[in-house]
Amino acid sequence: MFAPLQNDTFLRACRREPTEHTPVWLMRQAGRYLPEYRATRAKAGSFMALATNPELATEVTLQPLERYPLDAAILFSDILTVPDAMGLGLSFAIGEGPRFATPVRDEAAVDALAVPDMERLRYVFDAVTSIRHALDGRVPLIGFSGSPWTLACYMVEGAGSDDYRLVKSMLYSRPDLMHRILEINADAVAQYLNAQIAAGAQAVMIFDSWGGVLADGVFQRFSLAYTRRVLEQLTPQHDGQRIPRIVFTKGGAPWLEEMAGLETDVLGLDWTANLAAARRRVGDRVALQGNLDPNVLFAPPAVIESEVTKVLQDFASADAEMGGRDGHIFNLGHGISQHTPPDHVASLVEAVHAQSRRMRAGAAVQSG
Amino acid sequence: MFAPLQNDTFLRACRREPTEHTPVWLMRQAGRYLPEYRATRAKAGSFMALATNPELATEVTLQPLERYPLDAAILFSDILTVPDAMGLGLSFAIGEGPRFATPVRDEAAVDALAVPDMERLRYVFDAVTSIRHALDGRVPLIGFSGSPWTLACYMVEGAGSDDYRLVKSMLYSRPDLMHRILEINADAVAQYLNAQIAAGAQAVMIFDSWGGVLADGVFQRFSLAYTRRVLEQLTPQHDGQRIPRIVFTKGGAPWLEEMAGLETDVLGLDWTANLAAARRRVGDRVALQGNLDPNVLFAPPAVIESEVTKVLQDFASADAEMGGRDGHIFNLGHGISQHTPPDHVASLVEAVHAQSRRMRAGAAVQSG
Repeated sequence: MFAPLQNDTFLRACRREPTEHTPVWLMRQAGRYLPEYRATRAKAGSFMALATNPELATEVTLQPLERYPLDAAILFSDILTVPDAMGLGLSFAIGEGPRFATPVRDEAAVDALAVPDMERLRYVFDAVTSIRHALDGRVPLIGFSGSPWTLACYMVEGAGSDDYRLVKSMLYSRPDLMHRILEINADAVAQYLNAQIAAGAQAVMIFDSWGGVLADGVFQRFSLAYTRRVLEQLTPQHDGQRIPRIVFTKGGAPWLEEMAGLETDVLGLDWTANLAAARRRVGDRVALQGNLDPNVLFAPPAVIESEVTKVLQDFASADAEMGGRDGHIFNLGHGISQHTPPDHVASLVEAVHAQSRRMRAGAAVQSG
Repeated sequence: MFAPLQNDTFLRACRREPTEHTPVWLMRQAGRYLPEYRATRAKAGSFMALATNPELATEVTLQPLERYPLDAAILFSDILTVPDAMGLGLSFAIGEGPRFATPVRDEAAVDALAVPDMERLRYVFDAVTSIRHALDGRVPLIGFSGSPWTLACYMVEGAGSDDYRLVKSMLYSRPDLMHRILEINADAVAQYLNAQIAAGAQAVMIFDSWGGVLADGVFQRFSLAYTRRVLEQLTPQHDGQRIPRIVFTKGGAPWLEEMAGLETDVLGLDWTANLAAARRRVGDRVALQGNLDPNVLFAPPAVIESEVTKVLQDFASADAEMGGRDGHIFNLGHGISQHTPPDHVASLVEAVHAQSRRMRAGAAVQSG
């Protein structure tokens, strides 16, 4: 049905198999820093009009691949499509973040929640299939969802928050309600990701963008436990291929060992983690993805190159100690900024590919 | 000159000496959640009018002590007084955070920076002395400053930021300029804290509120190194008493071992850190302060009590393993929210005192 894959470097790194270079893709790589994205967005009229149109979602998903030799594509969508399908009414006002018309703030609202009919998210699955066809086997396609906890933050707060007061008040005051929301979210996210896999997603990523705002102990019960519940329900294989899973908790470094015990292939890291220390902490259980500060991309190319060197060497130094099985996917530690100069992204991708090829060649000479 | 200290529990815990209960104070304890604070603030007319008036600053500093048996007072002031004294023009618009009229964004602006004449901060030192007299020996007074890096964030961004794009762009593109700012800030902060000590501060705290947004490796060179530079210049003793230092890096858990190597008596922790793990990591080098999520204070008193138990037991369990030298100061992991119900703070302080007295009595029975 789909063309055979020409560049499987990303999938091999997820499985911790040898690769000739370190694969690289960027969170939010299809986005506002690209003038061609802004043109398509303007044509669509609104963010939701763009996200719900499979043809336009395909167009913007492929835009960064036309510019840069990235090793993976990621579905263009939003992390909040699932609560929107639950009937919460997602919108994006100009210059603001996402907003729900009917946030979930009391017992009645929680009682009314249910796993949505996946047909309401058909536009996402259609986009996945459309993108797979358009990619024509160039690189693999990653599907994704917000984590149960991260969705709950937006569902209760109704928008972004800088203190998470409403959602944490419910968590501490009415943990029964919070657990009920999280159960529904977990089952909905699992169905949603499985439908993306059925539609053609070759890997899936769970964005726990707000897990890091929780207290130790609370994170494990209200975020990690429900990410685990999603993972336990995921289709492990499709068309005879393992579908790798990536779990990214922003600010999650304190809980790296616990996250490495999840049924996941890869853990994403933000820039506060040291990749050498992280590689030692997770051992041979998972591959690692990350972790350049997106703000490095505002510096001149020579600085970008030296910061890339640092990330690659941090991982490689610890990996060599641990037996050299590799398993590093280069990425930013957070989504790329809308203010990023596009030619700096070219420098980044080129630096990751060229430097990692040289490092592998050097290692091969040493071990030969 | 000042009345003798009646309750030295906080200072003893800073020195890791035995105490009968765990001392407790709260970051931003004199603040908007108290109606009497809001009344004084209204009387002053503006935040800066309040902060620059020693009499009113004394009034609000003492307000929480009238309500709760807290074990320390902290100077009412702002972390940005030092750059304001450098001439950057600090203001607070209603409903917004701090803003500088003339941010530092280019080489000319950096060249124009200098350690300010401490006479321009006389209102702060006068407030310290006034508060010491008003406290009349009830509890010790903590002085404070923002860290060199945290001040630099505001100086370059000109206001709060959610991505630190401007300050990190300068850091990566022109590290020479950033180091110059940080040197000046460190020397200014050291003079500022030493003047607070001379005026009567019995402990000093450095708030590295934004250290945690830096990448590993960058934190050490651009935040930690300049906190160290401040500490090296601080007056170690005053009137024959050691002046304890507290360093608090929000999001600083990844670097706890490195921070424990500073010339500091106490490290502050936010709620993402586990106090048992932290106690093992820092060993006998420092006391620990923290670390309840401020959002716990929105829950009913029974929940507050059980969350207090968890924090106290986490510390005590590891401390017992490590020889039971104690050295825990209870606090929140961040400033108290303006929306906090004041009676919940009473429950918190009571729970910390009562529970920690019982735990110590139990431990004494066991070891006796």
